[in-house]
Amino acid sequence: MRFSKAFIPTLKENPADAEIPSHQLMIRSGMIRQLAAGIYSELPFGWRSAKKAMQIVREEMDRIGAQELFLPSLNPIEVWEETGRAAGFGDELFRLEDRKGRGMCLAPTHEEIICDIARGFIKSYRDLPQIWYQLQTKMRDEPRPRSGVLRGRQFIMKDSYSLDIDQAGLDKSYELHSQAYHRIFERCGLEFFVVGASSGLMGGTGSQEFMVASEHGEDRVALCPGCGYAANLEVAASRAIPIADPDEGDSEIEKVSTPDTRTIEEVSKFLKVKPERLIKTLVIISEEKPVMLLIAGDDDLEEAKLQGVLGAPFRPAHPEEIEELFGCEAGFLGPVNAPQMPIIADSRIMGGKHRITGANENHFHITGVEVGRHFKPDQAANLRAARSGEGCPNCQETLRVTNAIEIGHIFKLGTKYSSAMGAKFLDANGKEQPIIMGSYGIGIARIIACAIESNHDKDGIIWPLSLTPYEIVLIGINMKEAEVSIQTEALYADLLNQGFDVLFDDRDLRPGFKFKDADLLGIPYQIVISPKTIAEDKVEFKQRNSGARQVIKLEEALQIIRG
Amino acid sequence: MRFSKAFIPTLKENPADAEIPSHQLMIRSGMIRQLAAGIYSELPFGWRSAKKAMQIVREEMDRIGAQELFLPSLNPIEVWEETGRAAGFGDELFRLEDRKGRGMCLAPTHEEIICDIARGFIKSYRDLPQIWYQLQTKMRDEPRPRSGVLRGRQFIMKDSYSLDIDQAGLDKSYELHSQAYHRIFERCGLEFFVVGASSGLMGGTGSQEFMVASEHGEDRVALCPGCGYAANLEVAASRAIPIADPDEGDSEIEKVSTPDTRTIEEVSKFLKVKPERLIKTLVIISEEKPVMLLIAGDDDLEEAKLQGVLGAPFRPAHPEEIEELFGCEAGFLGPVNAPQMPIIADSRIMGGKHRITGANENHFHITGVEVGRHFKPDQAANLRAARSGEGCPNCQETLRVTNAIEIGHIFKLGTKYSSAMGAKFLDANGKEQPIIMGSYGIGIARIIACAIESNHDKDGIIWPLSLTPYEIVLIGINMKEAEVSIQTEALYADLLNQGFDVLFDDRDLRPGFKFKDADLLGIPYQIVISPKTIAEDKVEFKQRNSGARQVIKLEEALQIIRG
Repeated sequence: MRFSKAFIPTLKENPADAEIPSHQLMIRSGMIRQLAAGIYSELPFGWRSAKKAMQIVREEMDRIGAQELFLPSLNPIEVWEETGRAAGFGDELFRLEDRKGRGMCLAPTHEEIICDIARGFIKSYRDLPQIWYQLQTKMRDEPRPRSGVLRGRQFIMKDSYSLDIDQAGLDKSYELHSQAYHRIFERCGLEFFVVGASSGLMGGTGSQEFMVASEHGEDRVALCPGCGYAANLEVAASRAIPIADPDEGDSEIEKVSTPDTRTIEEVSKFLKVKPERLIKTLVIISEEKPVMLLIAGDDDLEEAKLQGVLGAPFRPAHPEEIEELFGCEAGFLGPVNAPQMPIIADSRIMGGKHRITGANENHFHITGVEVGRHFKPDQAANLRAARSGEGCPNCQETLRVTNAIEIGHIFKLGTKYSSAMGAKFLDANGKEQPIIMGSYGIGIARIIACAIESNHDKDGIIWPLSLTPYEIVLIGINMKEAEVSIQTEALYADLLNQGFDVLFDDRDLRPGFKFKDADLLGIPYQIVISPKTIAEDKVEFKQRNSGARQVIKLEEALQIIRG
Repeated sequence: MRFSKAFIPTLKENPADAEIPSHQLMIRSGMIRQLAAGIYSELPFGWRSAKKAMQIVREEMDRIGAQELFLPSLNPIEVWEETGRAAGFGDELFRLEDRKGRGMCLAPTHEEIICDIARGFIKSYRDLPQIWYQLQTKMRDEPRPRSGVLRGRQFIMKDSYSLDIDQAGLDKSYELHSQAYHRIFERCGLEFFVVGASSGLMGGTGSQEFMVASEHGEDRVALCPGCGYAANLEVAASRAIPIADPDEGDSEIEKVSTPDTRTIEEVSKFLKVKPERLIKTLVIISEEKPVMLLIAGDDDLEEAKLQGVLGAPFRPAHPEEIEELFGCEAGFLGPVNAPQMPIIADSRIMGGKHRITGANENHFHITGVEVGRHFKPDQAANLRAARSGEGCPNCQETLRVTNAIEIGHIFKLGTKYSSAMGAKFLDANGKEQPIIMGSYGIGIARIIACAIESNHDKDGIIWPLSLTPYEIVLIGINMKEAEVSIQTEALYADLLNQGFDVLFDDRDLRPGFKFKDADLLGIPYQIVISPKTIAEDKVEFKQRNSGARQVIKLEEALQIIRG
């Protein structure tokens, strides 16, 4: 492609509304343009990269025997009502009516449509296993679209679905996907890790996320540098650091005045004790009933873990609900002499003595509380978020907690959807069984954004070879000189003939401008031809990743490019 | 792909709701499955063909220098309000609101989004020309989705847009598209023709349709076998057959009783004159005023032509409006002694004598009417649909009118959209000008459906090589015999290594069943291996298009396949 004819609208300045590097660079290099919040047009430079990512995905999905299909975005709402997800997705589901007033929605994922196809055609165990995949646009009305393409309202996903006759079959399909995902992300040049994850709204019996560490990621994960343990904080285990109680024999409770000290920090400071010795008392409402949660003062509640323990949705109690139940503010709650309600305690506080809790009376706390003696939790559970520096649950190393971006997610769904929708098969004994399903996703734009997050410098993008929109940028300096024009034109034709993706910067612009654009666009190899290089019968050759700039024979440069 | 593992759900019987061959065969060969009216899932066998068509389109669009991008389906409604098409598309536009109540729609085409991008980035004549294209899903709420994928509510289009600085530039971009479209449809093996067409809702200064003749097409076109003239009936010209008036000197009007004869057929029979000598009087309402239309009794009004003449929307007058204006029923209207309103006469009736019209009185007609003497049309125009047997407007041959399917459409839009949306550029003199646009579409599913409409027999599809999901179907007969299994497995691996797309029918099924499926699926080459062919050291080789079946050496078969 000639740059003079290409539509690559580069920008010198960072756009005001883009905060993270990938978003800034995708805008500045003319890859994308926002049409509405979370909705982007893929411009030619960006789309070339997306197509390369999609081709890698296709090759690796085909390799595990998956068959590509293409499912509609426009769905009748009834299909989504069969599984309860029309309601389950809530406001995230874009809904509409057709001209006859029939309810429709825009598919945020496709388990329901897969089940509908399966129940139409899959009759017998002989028709299974199947793996079906598509590269298709999903639409989800995200409450807070942000970070450019990382959290959009319309985005291209590779989603695939496995259909099996039993758990062993699902395990195999899941493992095939895991292998394919490893190969895909390796080929895309991403440094990723795999973490155990919560199944969330998808349901099912197991799930893993493929993640790339990034300070701009929305997810938080715990990683062990020793054994490789990696888990989303939503599910991460850890060996918590024990809380040191003062060795003062049996503890006896004492009510102390703590005027205007409500937060852990305030109480800890006021009573001169470490925050860990405080017991934080939280009240949530689940299934319309209050539940008391107790965790150590220096820990954070991990909502996904609580969700798993409750097995039901929940919300924090409102201040007025707390006032009515306890007769005091949220800052002075405690489990001793509390109104009757289930108490779930985080395991880390179990067995503690000499702890401090609220007194259920404004401006008072209780000291000397012994867990199990002064109050009895109904259940002990892992409710806390793992923290950096805690022990790995699998080895003697300590964990590191980092932000990360999810690029892929694999789920063992089991029979949740197939049972709800009657997607069954006759087993070898002629008995009807629900199909065992798996569901697997990769966000194409996230692959691109992660590649940029991990590979850029102050001057621009540094593309990995597998995803770069062009492999070579050929820069003519002083194109008006006949010799430069002749030589660059000839080389451009030659490189195209050799099968390279070439962007030929034939524009009549100052060299500095062209170099800046070349660095911004991040194409791996720059070949520069100027009156000076022609005089030497050489080319200037720059590799974008190292920044190394050499004046060498053309053939030497091509040898480096060919690897 | 092994058939035993493939998801190709073939059906023996034609589905009850599919009326045309392509629809029937796409269902029967497991290419598509309906999810809702006009909304189809593309199953693996169909999607392979669609991907081949899309690849051909990509190659030919790239060849004319077009750059691929990908625009969102979810659009903010405001962008569509800028051009008035939010209203213009009416119920065909799927509308919705996001969670914040902002109006959105699903893009039925993308001129508006292209203009939005152009006004964001195109500054100068140096940034032009540009041709941008995408392969993307369109959504239109068709009032009557039908004919399978031929008229769906969600479908993949290649749409492209040219941006130029002047008419000469537009002419060139238009011509490049015309060339690309010729190559695309030729490569797809379609026998197509190009017709002049109406621009309809798109507006603009010129447009052509690429069409395939088919009795199941919704469009009607006039074709000249002599000079190649071809035009949609919406715009087709013709040399009409002159109306023979009886040579009886000057005609004088006479009111005749025609009790209960309202239709052309009834009056013609009652008065014993040919229908062509009757003048049909129609009344329409345009811009809230009545207009009288006159055409020969044996002609049909072509609404698109009338639309062009009026330059405004119109509707037939209601019976009560006619009653009020004329004091009689619609069956007895005529231009003589009619209430005051503009009269547009079809050119074919001009100069006629001894004609018959209604008398504007129930149960009476007038004979002996002379056009121009007994009434004066305000305008003569071409209002009639061309008919088979009429003369070609360009040569001495006669026209044939046939049904056809539109597979591509190219439009010269001019500045309609760019002016409305302020998509401008600075010309060489530094003056602001609106960008001159063209818009060009190809329906991917229509390419596939047309290929099937034109290439099938009672047994199934007959794929052209360029679009076939697989090139070879390898059929093992009696797969349980070790020798058959060994030989077919070896050949399957060998054919894949040679780069062929192979479907290997390794299923444990009766030969007749496999042959029926192979014919239904329409894969061009069938290679059959059975104990008998192994004994002869040959293969059975069938070419689906000719039906020719030979027992020959494998190498001979492969030579034929390689062409």
